[in-house]
Amino acid sequence: MKSLIDFYFDFSSPYGYLASTRIDALAERYEREVAWHPILLGVVFKTTGGMPLPSIPLKGQYALHDFLRSAKFHGVEFSLPSPFPIATQTPARATVWLQDSDAARAKDLAKALFHAYFVAGSDISQPDNTVAVATRLGLDADAVRAALADPAIKDKLKAENELALERGVFGSPFVVVDGEPFWGVDRFDQIEKWLATGGW
Amino acid sequence: MKSLIDFYFDFSSPYGYLASTRIDALAERYEREVAWHPILLGVVFKTTGGMPLPSIPLKGQYALHDFLRSAKFHGVEFSLPSPFPIATQTPARATVWLQDSDAARAKDLAKALFHAYFVAGSDISQPDNTVAVATRLGLDADAVRAALADPAIKDKLKAENELALERGVFGSPFVVVDGEPFWGVDRFDQIEKWLATGGW
Repeated sequence: MKSLIDFYFDFSSPYGYLASTRIDALAERYEREVAWHPILLGVVFKTTGGMPLPSIPLKGQYALHDFLRSAKFHGVEFSLPSPFPIATQTPARATVWLQDSDAARAKDLAKALFHAYFVAGSDISQPDNTVAVATRLGLDADAVRAALADPAIKDKLKAENELALERGVFGSPFVVVDGEPFWGVDRFDQIEKWLATGGW
Repeated sequence: MKSLIDFYFDFSSPYGYLASTRIDALAERYEREVAWHPILLGVVFKTTGGMPLPSIPLKGQYALHDFLRSAKFHGVEFSLPSPFPIATQTPARATVWLQDSDAARAKDLAKALFHAYFVAGSDISQPDNTVAVATRLGLDADAVRAALADPAIKDKLKAENELALERGVFGSPFVVVDGEPFWGVDRFDQIEKWLATGGW
């Protein structure tokens, strides 16, 4: 059996969202499966000295324009939400909690959370909004609320984040295929070639 | 007549080098011409707070790997030079000097300088090495040396750099097509679509 493709993303990352709409279909073309890993870029940036794109002079202004243009280019529905960016502990915790019991459903939840933020404009940093997304998928609201407050889930997300940093993950989206790292939705062409040829 | 495509690059930028091998052919497919603009990323970074890629934790290590992989992906000869990165006042001044008298030949010089650094491994920050590249193209060594020391050429490059910053240029390569900004060689697919359709 071929190894899983690791897909790292932050729920507040527009390029992570664009990647989330394409990664599973890309993997399926090569009979591969994807492990989704929500990460917290805010924590990663403490290691790399990075900053949220909108805070960077010149680059920030460009990025706001490029998000929209790139979404159109890829044919993906996208609307810049407000507030942006947001802290993403809440949606990330909900996702890692559900992964323990049902990885496929956790992926559906992650996709629904991305859609809620970048299409419907719902601030998923607010527990009420993340819970609302989860209940629309048939999950129990009280169970989700309990998970969001559970220290064990908080620790699990923290550990996942540390593991990602140890693997060299510094941005979103970040994809690792058979040990080969690819940063950015604009490396999907290289990922596809890698999957097709096993390297070059 | 259609407007020129503006191509901004730093001579020490691997992605700028990759772009330099493709920009003219891309433009020609749409009957467009390219104005080449050497810039100094070191000066730009004073405005944006940017850092040379190799200096950034995690991202730097990834970048060194991605340069080589991306060059292979695009079928471009590339070898990581040492020292890297370098200050690029010298090759940039030689290029802007020649642009005054012969823009086409200045483009040939820029391509030869990129090749000298990223293929032959010559440290073009050293005047002797930049002069050697220029003389191989038939330029007069003394004239090039005089240009490199000419305060008017120094001022011209400085003015070009300021103009680039005013236009929002913050990285290399950076391409402006009819007012639309594109950062990175990985935006060449979007540039191509823009040239083909006039926007989307």
